[in-house]
Amino acid sequence: MIASQSRIWTPLDFERDGKFVDYLRLPHSTDRSAYGCIQIPIVCIKNAIGPTALLIAGNHGDEYEGQIALMNLARRLTPREISGRVIVLPSANFPAVKAARRVSPVDAGNLNRSFPGSATGTPTEMIAHYISTVLLPMSDIAIDLHSGGLSLDYVRCAIIRPGRTSEEHQELLELLRVFGAPISFVDSSQGGGGGGGATTLNAVARSLGVPTITTELGGGATVSPAGVQLAEHGITRVLKHIGIAPNLAGEERAGTEFMDYAGRDSSIYADADGIFEPAALVGQEVFEGDLAGRLYYIDDPTREPMELRFRKSGRVECRRFPSLTARGDCLYTLMLPTVV
Amino acid sequence: MIASQSRIWTPLDFERDGKFVDYLRLPHSTDRSAYGCIQIPIVCIKNAIGPTALLIAGNHGDEYEGQIALMNLARRLTPREISGRVIVLPSANFPAVKAARRVSPVDAGNLNRSFPGSATGTPTEMIAHYISTVLLPMSDIAIDLHSGGLSLDYVRCAIIRPGRTSEEHQELLELLRVFGAPISFVDSSQGGGGGGGATTLNAVARSLGVPTITTELGGGATVSPAGVQLAEHGITRVLKHIGIAPNLAGEERAGTEFMDYAGRDSSIYADADGIFEPAALVGQEVFEGDLAGRLYYIDDPTREPMELRFRKSGRVECRRFPSLTARGDCLYTLMLPTVV
Amino acid sequence: MIASQSRIWTPLDFERDGKFVDYLRLPHSTDRSAYGCIQIPIVCIKNAIGPTALLIAGNHGDEYEGQIALMNLARRLTPREISGRVIVLPSANFPAVKAARRVSPVDAGNLNRSFPGSATGTPTEMIAHYISTVLLPMSDIAIDLHSGGLSLDYVRCAIIRPGRTSEEHQELLELLRVFGAPISFVDSSQGGGGGGGATTLNAVARSLGVPTITTELGGGATVSPAGVQLAEHGITRVLKHIGIAPNLAGEERAGTEFMDYAGRDSSIYADADGIFEPAALVGQEVFEGDLAGRLYYIDDPTREPMELRFRKSGRVECRRFPSLTARGDCLYTLMLPTVV
Amino acid sequence: MIASQSRIWTPLDFERDGKFVDYLRLPHSTDRSAYGCIQIPIVCIKNAIGPTALLIAGNHGDEYEGQIALMNLARRLTPREISGRVIVLPSANFPAVKAARRVSPVDAGNLNRSFPGSATGTPTEMIAHYISTVLLPMSDIAIDLHSGGLSLDYVRCAIIRPGRTSEEHQELLELLRVFGAPISFVDSSQGGGGGGGATTLNAVARSLGVPTITTELGGGATVSPAGVQLAEHGITRVLKHIGIAPNLAGEERAGTEFMDYAGRDSSIYADADGIFEPAALVGQEVFEGDLAGRLYYIDDPTREPMELRFRKSGRVECRRFPSLTARGDCLYTLMLPTVV
Amino acid sequence: MIASQSRIWTPLDFERDGKFVDYLRLPHSTDRSAYGCIQIPIVCIKNAIGPTALLIAGNHGDEYEGQIALMNLARRLTPREISGRVIVLPSANFPAVKAARRVSPVDAGNLNRSFPGSATGTPTEMIAHYISTVLLPMSDIAIDLHSGGLSLDYVRCAIIRPGRTSEEHQELLELLRVFGAPISFVDSSQGGGGGGGATTLNAVARSLGVPTITTELGGGATVSPAGVQLAEHGITRVLKHIGIAPNLAGEERAGTEFMDYAGRDSSIYADADGIFEPAALVGQEVFEGDLAGRLYYIDDPTREPMELRFRKSGRVECRRFPSLTARGDCLYTLMLPTVV
Amino acid sequence: MIASQSRIWTPLDFERDGKFVDYLRLPHSTDRSAYGCIQIPIVCIKNAIGPTALLIAGNHGDEYEGQIALMNLARRLTPREISGRVIVLPSANFPAVKAARRVSPVDAGNLNRSFPGSATGTPTEMIAHYISTVLLPMSDIAIDLHSGGLSLDYVRCAIIRPGRTSEEHQELLELLRVFGAPISFVDSSQGGGGGGGATTLNAVARSLGVPTITTELGGGATVSPAGVQLAEHGITRVLKHIGIAPNLAGEERAGTEFMDYAGRDSSIYADADGIFEPAALVGQEVFEGDLAGRLYYIDDPTREPMELRFRKSGRVECRRFPSLTARGDCLYTLMLPTVV
Repeated sequence: MIASQSRIWTPLDFERDGKFVDYLRLPHSTDRSAYGCIQIPIVCIKNAIGPTALLIAGNHGDEYEGQIALMNLARRLTPREISGRVIVLPSANFPAVKAARRVSPVDAGNLNRSFPGSATGTPTEMIAHYISTVLLPMSDIAIDLHSGGLSLDYVRCAIIRPGRTSEEHQELLELLRVFGAPISFVDSSQGGGGGGGATTLNAVARSLGVPTITTELGGGATVSPAGVQLAEHGITRVLKHIGIAPNLAGEERAGTEFMDYAGRDSSIYADADGIFEPAALVGQEVFEGDLAGRLYYIDDPTREPMELRFRKSGRVECRRFPSLTARGDCLYTLMLPTVV
Repeated sequence: MIASQSRIWTPLDFERDGKFVDYLRLPHSTDRSAYGCIQIPIVCIKNAIGPTALLIAGNHGDEYEGQIALMNLARRLTPREISGRVIVLPSANFPAVKAARRVSPVDAGNLNRSFPGSATGTPTEMIAHYISTVLLPMSDIAIDLHSGGLSLDYVRCAIIRPGRTSEEHQELLELLRVFGAPISFVDSSQGGGGGGGATTLNAVARSLGVPTITTELGGGATVSPAGVQLAEHGITRVLKHIGIAPNLAGEERAGTEFMDYAGRDSSIYADADGIFEPAALVGQEVFEGDLAGRLYYIDDPTREPMELRFRKSGRVECRRFPSLTARGDCLYTLMLPTVV
Repeated sequence: MIASQSRIWTPLDFERDGKFVDYLRLPHSTDRSAYGCIQIPIVCIKNAIGPTALLIAGNHGDEYEGQIALMNLARRLTPREISGRVIVLPSANFPAVKAARRVSPVDAGNLNRSFPGSATGTPTEMIAHYISTVLLPMSDIAIDLHSGGLSLDYVRCAIIRPGRTSEEHQELLELLRVFGAPISFVDSSQGGGGGGGATTLNAVARSLGVPTITTELGGGATVSPAGVQLAEHGITRVLKHIGIAPNLAGEERAGTEFMDYAGRDSSIYADADGIFEPAALVGQEVFEGDLAGRLYYIDDPTREPMELRFRKSGRVECRRFPSLTARGDCLYTLMLPTVV
Repeated sequence: MIASQSRIWTPLDFERDGKFVDYLRLPHSTDRSAYGCIQIPIVCIKNAIGPTALLIAGNHGDEYEGQIALMNLARRLTPREISGRVIVLPSANFPAVKAARRVSPVDAGNLNRSFPGSATGTPTEMIAHYISTVLLPMSDIAIDLHSGGLSLDYVRCAIIRPGRTSEEHQELLELLRVFGAPISFVDSSQGGGGGGGATTLNAVARSLGVPTITTELGGGATVSPAGVQLAEHGITRVLKHIGIAPNLAGEERAGTEFMDYAGRDSSIYADADGIFEPAALVGQEVFEGDLAGRLYYIDDPTREPMELRFRKSGRVECRRFPSLTARGDCLYTLMLPTVV
Repeated sequence: MIASQSRIWTPLDFERDGKFVDYLRLPHSTDRSAYGCIQIPIVCIKNAIGPTALLIAGNHGDEYEGQIALMNLARRLTPREISGRVIVLPSANFPAVKAARRVSPVDAGNLNRSFPGSATGTPTEMIAHYISTVLLPMSDIAIDLHSGGLSLDYVRCAIIRPGRTSEEHQELLELLRVFGAPISFVDSSQGGGGGGGATTLNAVARSLGVPTITTELGGGATVSPAGVQLAEHGITRVLKHIGIAPNLAGEERAGTEFMDYAGRDSSIYADADGIFEPAALVGQEVFEGDLAGRLYYIDDPTREPMELRFRKSGRVECRRFPSLTARGDCLYTLMLPTVV
Repeated sequence: MIASQSRIWTPLDFERDGKFVDYLRLPHSTDRSAYGCIQIPIVCIKNAIGPTALLIAGNHGDEYEGQIALMNLARRLTPREISGRVIVLPSANFPAVKAARRVSPVDAGNLNRSFPGSATGTPTEMIAHYISTVLLPMSDIAIDLHSGGLSLDYVRCAIIRPGRTSEEHQELLELLRVFGAPISFVDSSQGGGGGGGATTLNAVARSLGVPTITTELGGGATVSPAGVQLAEHGITRVLKHIGIAPNLAGEERAGTEFMDYAGRDSSIYADADGIFEPAALVGQEVFEGDLAGRLYYIDDPTREPMELRFRKSGRVECRRFPSLTARGDCLYTLMLPTVV
């Protein structure tokens, strides 16, 4: 490839002590602004010697708990509370955040399906590339805060990918315990229903050896106060744990329950277009054969709705949020308790 | 005006005994179908002599509780259970329903701002005109089932406009008591935050002397099971009450609480773009000066979020559902107990 | 209404002898041209004393036989061949013609559903208003050339609305015989499948007492050479017949067959989305119960396709042209022989 | 019509002394905000007894000199400097202003072609209706500040419509002299190239008997400092003249030159698509036969460009600004000196 | 590249005997469905031991004869009629099929210009990649059924690319004879007018050593019954020939005529925008200098239309179907008899 | 990569003496034209033996001075005036030129951010690839004419990239002197505000060893006559200088001033959305702390506008042209005198 250095730049100096708020400037030459930039807010808080934590939200623009938690943290955290560096990117795919969308309105890019990105690609690919080649390499730990977004309601949880060595794996499991989400996942291969595989931030971070936690904190286009709180407490505990903010006051961690994704065959997909009336809640225990919901046929109001039944037993990990549903939409994924 | 007779037609014969499911055919001549129709499902159940009830949902396409309740009713109700006629229009603005939108994708029309409609107007105006000139004139009572839709979370309630005479008003209040929603409103003039005034179905029905109830049954793009149940039970009670289905088994009505909209000055509008973190729930009692929520500035993550406080005391009637908010969005309307 | 005089103007002088080619200038103030116009070509050929014929094509932009016939006529006809005036508007809804669409890309307007139009309305309504208030009132006869367009294949025919008096009716029937299409229709009220009613050019011309013929000359987005030829010969015969061009060489007329639209109940509409495989040709005689076609389900390739059967006997007047079909599309209309 | 009272409301009290900044709230019920408003900024400055001046800019969203001048005025003017009332609407078609467009992105409405508007129409029509039925009736004088916008470069001028009586006419001419633009127009009937006729603010104001000046202050999507200055000085002089701000410091007026639009036949329209290379400047004197510009054919680079020549003598009133031009665009209008 | 394994998956087991109908699930994470899939129907019919035939239609979504033929085949063919395996993909670029478009509405992708595809690319690229890396490698023969689609009318024909060895070439020629289209082509390098080169399914199949036939079966947005029939008979003959369905009843093959594309210089392109009136039919023999058609100028109705003449002699292979034409559109390609 | 030979072809023979006007045919297979082409005009003028000059405009479609200059040159220059070859591509990104846009409406491609392009990419990438692999390799010199376009007003200047050797550098500096723009730049690495880096035509030309000049000739969506003239004179002088047209009459060159881009830190970006009122002109000398302009807040008309001040001293190289501005837009870049 011809260009491998990011064209994104910032006046912010990551090596300087203090708290600095500035922008990543992503050159975006358009009809209406030939020399225009997409300005992505970034905050760097640094003091003394210590590890670097990279905190990201707005990877998908329609997931709000993490965005609020990181804006609160960026506002409140002071350099003198830390030893090391905290880099906060509260709205990573900034155009998607401004548009309340999962994907960017500029290039239809889904940031978490765009890693490791490209220096000469679309804006979304350039953001992925900057995170992969600039931010992650400076980091000792990364937390990427997701939620269910517009289309999913999600159990509150934290997720790791399996460590590449047994030692790394134990370290990641410990991070999950410290973060203290009600549910913790070890996501082997392709995750729940997302199937992002190697194109996610987490996958790239893993290949770079940066321990990384992602989360799911709520969903449905709105804000879950419990999700915001979990993000704030979990991050605080992790910053203490890795020694960046050893004296920060924080909530005691609660126990977490380790779960496994119950497998692709336990997911339920819509086999027709229609109005989805769900019959189970996120987190609920369900049994094979239980009613999962009904799909009503808009064109044929007196036709018996399609009854959907669970094909396996388990607990509901996530559920489609909006009622109107198209063939192919994922309606449920299930999870199962596991021992780690 | 040149044409005042509806161009919408249907093979369905409203005068025939039995249950018939067919379509309103709205001629819609487009590039892709010169002689095409929009087919709007309609069900007519008729038997013996008795009054006519017109049941409508999908006036706004993104409001689901009523649509599900009416599809269930249309499927289950048999002619021999009734004396009279039940006309069911479960997806009145059909193109909006298919698109999961409040307004029609065909003409951007908001059906409940398009009454009394026009025979030669846009498809949405033609639907309003058909309801105004064909369906309402055949009806002795009308129920128009709304919910909060994508953008609002709404207290479960039923609503009337004030009767034009004291007698009519008492009859309408009695209908509210029979319907049995937890909350009942008498909406004078312009309603809550909607301001539809004379352009709503209810306003036209009132001018025609057809007693009409509307509802709000949930919101937020998803289905509220309690809202579906309320619609089903409330309609059943009304059908019994007016003598169409005197022997239908039905749930006892619960008491209803009469409320008034607390006035335009008690509503809270967003004065900036941002992420809205609400601090009060629908139905909750709030006091002047209480925190209503915060608006976070995406462009300036470390700027103190704008604190929004209630300007009056009351109870929350509805609340904005999605987090991303633009200047001018209504965030809350309040209601106050009243004596009828 | 405030403004009733057309804002459309033209430098062309309709009272001057000779052949003049110019534009109707429709003021269209847009972002890209505050004082811009839509320029609609118009040709006026005038000589001596005699009646005025108004010849129109491009009422729908995707119907080509009439457009070609009128461009040929406007190019070839010389003033000295006529006594009277021939006004040619070969692309009446000019923006629709440029876009190869039935409706205008500027305002989504279907010109033949926009009569009598409005002086202050959308561009399509302004064109309808100009034809209604300026061109038709100068005319002694009007011919409005249609075809099936993108979505229909149509039997070659000419159409009148019933005369308002018996004398007028006989005059119109004679015009049909002179025009000499293979099939001639008397369209009472709402026409075949179009249902334009009072909003068509023909309806307005009738109310103004201008004898008017419309045609259908082919269809399917392409040009039918036989349709072009019929338009050229038919117009020549009519110009001779009414004395404008008594000496013009022309083809002898063939006999025409008078037909009636077989009624709304004989039309076939698609009751599902799918791929339409037709089983009968335009003009073909069909019998009740005959196979009309099949609808294949794209989502369920092994599901038996829906068989569509004719519900009445008759001959095929028009048939849907494109394969992909949506619920509500008209697939066939039928016609029946009649005595006039 | 059913509804004639505006649905637009504002917390601002026009009768209260002081300076108040608030919003017109235009209910705009959309998919993303069922109870949402378009918030149009409005400023009211009132003190003691005296006449009311209504100052408007942003009638077209892409015209900036007036918007800046009114924001400056609204910021600087204090109640104690005036006797009477100054109502400032600096961005009348607010959605168009936010979008840098002549017309509204919400409904494609051109506000100055939408008067007198409609209480139940599109947002643009509702704004026109509010100005026509609420703001103009409170006003003793109105100034509506326009410029050439994106597509035109315009001579700096002020414009009146002819008074309905000789006395009214003299009063309006005196206002033009006081305003003191380099050029002053009396616009009979249809104005320069715009042809707005009865659908403009000025036409409605005239029918209500409110003396009204409009202006053209620059053009081409950018800001003319001289245009901003003219607006500020002209308004100040008018406010002094009518007694609202008798002591306000202001620039002496310069003499104005009275001109007439040279007539539709002197305008030059593009007769082909192409790149327009102009040969005359705004304000320049030109003679019949002079080169006006060239149109280059993009598809045929070696084809001789079309030479455009002036068809009459006069001075250039306005000229198309952007190079790329479509058939029908107005390239020039001319003006001629006149005696008033 | 990071990810080379397809993210498309299916519950269908290609190794199991019987007939199974299921979907390819292509993960497509969007605003409206974070874990959504595009579900592409696939049918697998397997029995005993024998070769595998891959049958594809809907490579371009607007080409219908192949889609209908494969749905009929998939419905009718039973496992006990075969020895081996028949994999049927009747709507390969499923989103394009649903939209009646050549290219996908999801990513504007033209599937037959997207080979060999990409595991991490757009949905269209992912489909190409799945066919290239999963389906073709399991196949002993492939048939990819095309037609002219919306924009072309095509002679009925079958096409191969030249074999890589003389033996392979003879085998492919024999397949053409067995398939039995009226016309057979050997397409060296870039095909007729399409110029897809190495980016087509056929090119990739060739590089994998899978003998492949493509077809053209009609065109113009509608269904050609003769094209459907040819596809059904041709496929049946091929399945018999290669031993998968030796006892299937089938039509005798007719002789085929071998033709060569007459070369780029014999094609006719539109040199102006206009309405295209063609003068020759598909399959017709034409001579250098013959009239090919006329282009009418919409803006200048009395301008002499541009006459297009054939530049070489030959027979018409395909012809533009729609009338409205833009500069650069291919109007005709020619073919010439050849000896194989 | 699989395909590295361009799929763009042309009937034009670059090796033939004479002047030939033809098209590059870029195969663009779309819904509306399966075998369609984008036809990009190209002119080749050749005579005797001598070097080849490649002259390009319309790299960005909204930059007009170069397009006009090259159309004039292509029309006027005759083969007998030259020894060698002049290849003229006056509208390189042809779809962008037709749309008056910087980027292509077909694929949103910015041609000067798409080099070296791709043979199988989007149309814009295919054009870049054709220039990189076909046109530049035939050329001894290239001139790529830019202007500020819609969004920038630019000082008239010519630009080189530094030579790869001292000798090459001297040759390029001499070309700048010969071209004779008022200002000359040596653009190291990333240019002014554009940041195109390795993805520009100039960068690829440099890597191929083709001496290349680019220009900026005006801006703001309109034509600068002085810019057209500079292009015409500068090109004539260069053609004389390199011996292609030694006897062409031409204007004497004026002296040029060598400048350096003042660095990223001297640029001014908008830190808020608003209306930009500039305070300095292109070419003007400014000092640190001088007022650069004001940003007015549309939503808050009485809020004090944001004052923007220059952060360094220098001269204005370019300035944002349109008033309405979004956060991230570049408002000014500065330049400084330099010694070469």
